[in-house]
Amino acid sequence: MTETTTAPAGAAVPAEQRAAEEALTAKVLASFAGTPDPRLKQLMQALTRHLHAFVREVRLTEAEWEKAIEFLTAVGHITDDRRQEFILLSDVLGASMQTIAVNNPVDGDATEATVFGPFFLEDAPEIPLGGDIAGGATGQPAWVEGTVTDTQGDPIPGARIEVWEADEDGFYDVQYGDDRITGRAHLYADQNGNYAFWGLTPTPYPIPHDGPVGAMLAATNRSPVRAAHLHFMVTAENHRTLVTHIFVEDDPQIEIGDSVFGVKDSLIKTFATQPPGTPTPDGRDLGEQEWARTRFDIVLAPSPF
Amino acid sequence: MTETTTAPAGAAVPAEQRAAEEALTAKVLASFAGTPDPRLKQLMQALTRHLHAFVREVRLTEAEWEKAIEFLTAVGHITDDRRQEFILLSDVLGASMQTIAVNNPVDGDATEATVFGPFFLEDAPEIPLGGDIAGGATGQPAWVEGTVTDTQGDPIPGARIEVWEADEDGFYDVQYGDDRITGRAHLYADQNGNYAFWGLTPTPYPIPHDGPVGAMLAATNRSPVRAAHLHFMVTAENHRTLVTHIFVEDDPQIEIGDSVFGVKDSLIKTFATQPPGTPTPDGRDLGEQEWARTRFDIVLAPSPF
Repeated sequence: MTETTTAPAGAAVPAEQRAAEEALTAKVLASFAGTPDPRLKQLMQALTRHLHAFVREVRLTEAEWEKAIEFLTAVGHITDDRRQEFILLSDVLGASMQTIAVNNPVDGDATEATVFGPFFLEDAPEIPLGGDIAGGATGQPAWVEGTVTDTQGDPIPGARIEVWEADEDGFYDVQYGDDRITGRAHLYADQNGNYAFWGLTPTPYPIPHDGPVGAMLAATNRSPVRAAHLHFMVTAENHRTLVTHIFVEDDPQIEIGDSVFGVKDSLIKTFATQPPGTPTPDGRDLGEQEWARTRFDIVLAPSPF
Repeated sequence: MTETTTAPAGAAVPAEQRAAEEALTAKVLASFAGTPDPRLKQLMQALTRHLHAFVREVRLTEAEWEKAIEFLTAVGHITDDRRQEFILLSDVLGASMQTIAVNNPVDGDATEATVFGPFFLEDAPEIPLGGDIAGGATGQPAWVEGTVTDTQGDPIPGARIEVWEADEDGFYDVQYGDDRITGRAHLYADQNGNYAFWGLTPTPYPIPHDGPVGAMLAATNRSPVRAAHLHFMVTAENHRTLVTHIFVEDDPQIEIGDSVFGVKDSLIKTFATQPPGTPTPDGRDLGEQEWARTRFDIVLAPSPF
């Protein structure tokens, strides 16, 4: 962890001063010594160490400390039942993805996880194999198919697949503030672990960026845009639940940078455009509409429990 | 900085997994590479390193991440114009004192700094030398006297001394929600750098602890009580402004632990109790009331500018 041990500014601090700063950190650590829950004690002491190391390394000024208090206050005040700016903050600092990385360790060929996001809904409608998740959401139709297997390559019949995505304008159904349920559904893999459905070719969209997190992204010249993606949550007995996305090859936002660091190479898929009139896999008549097809084979890790 | 480099949980992480986690941190650091302001770039990259190191070291679970989001949301929602829970949080984690330590380096014999706190007011009344700051606030009268000198021992005539404190019930004037101005004043050192005033012997009081920060203190078996103290802010041309307190020797809270880590040994003073009827330094008639006296000699560091 070379990146956690460098302390460029702190290195120039005289020994007497450094000792005073370290003594203060030690005093705060000791204040948590009586915490009854050992895990909470570990968390609070580690938080204290890293927080103090940050303040000391950057030699945080009192004016910067005040700015930080003001920033957090603004994040708190914009947050309500519909807007969660602290999650956005965690997302754009990569803390959400780091937490996912820690909890979904690399496991051979198992499909990689990525961020859950704030737009999942329980009770999305069930569709049959080959059904359409759009439910009125607009965009280029995309045929998505694949298999669900375990890490031995054996199919997982009946695996439950939840899928959800934004429409071509970059909005999820819940962002319209009416009661529509569109662009989301769940289905079950067949006896051989195969699944297929009609979705929409994903398009990039910005995270909410009219608040303090958006101001931070602007001040650091960062794009608020998420790489285009289609959400999956796949569950099956005796297997670790997989929360992930697939991304669209050739989406320029992948190169610019996904604002929440969700992209993994293994999750980038070709959405092959089909000229109008190309016969569809299930005989669906799309008239003169262009459509796309992609394949996403899903491998679930065994449950750790 | 031994306490920042131990990573007990992370040490057991397989190499492939560790590489994936480090690659993610590197990607987030790179996202800030285009920040126009070099200081902001340094701050955001250091924050990212320490935040990710924390998540990885403790192997933060997704449930704990959710708890953290809920906690910060509650801190944000209780914060308003009269209550600043983020400052309380910074205080009880020792981050406020660490920032003060970094910005007020040890300088020979100069008087040490401590936390500013949220209860200072501009425009407190001026009193003459030997005047009373109580203005109706109740408590044991305390005669406070001393000198203001520079680090060469030369007096600083005319140094401005702001003093403020809670009453014997542990409340500052501003906490009563009326317009009273009590327990605060400013005065000026005389030609020889001497000053004196009547204050109140400080008493311990809890920080506001009915919110999420109080809940955290309770869960970690920590006292919300501040060691009894009297605030000083001393300013003089060509000298570094001193923000500090004096504490009361024999206050049991010093041993239990000041909830915001403000105590420094050099700031603990004897408040010597005087039996009723003991003549006062300025002839003030206190009748049958007990009173106390203390001495606080103040040494200002030269201005760094």
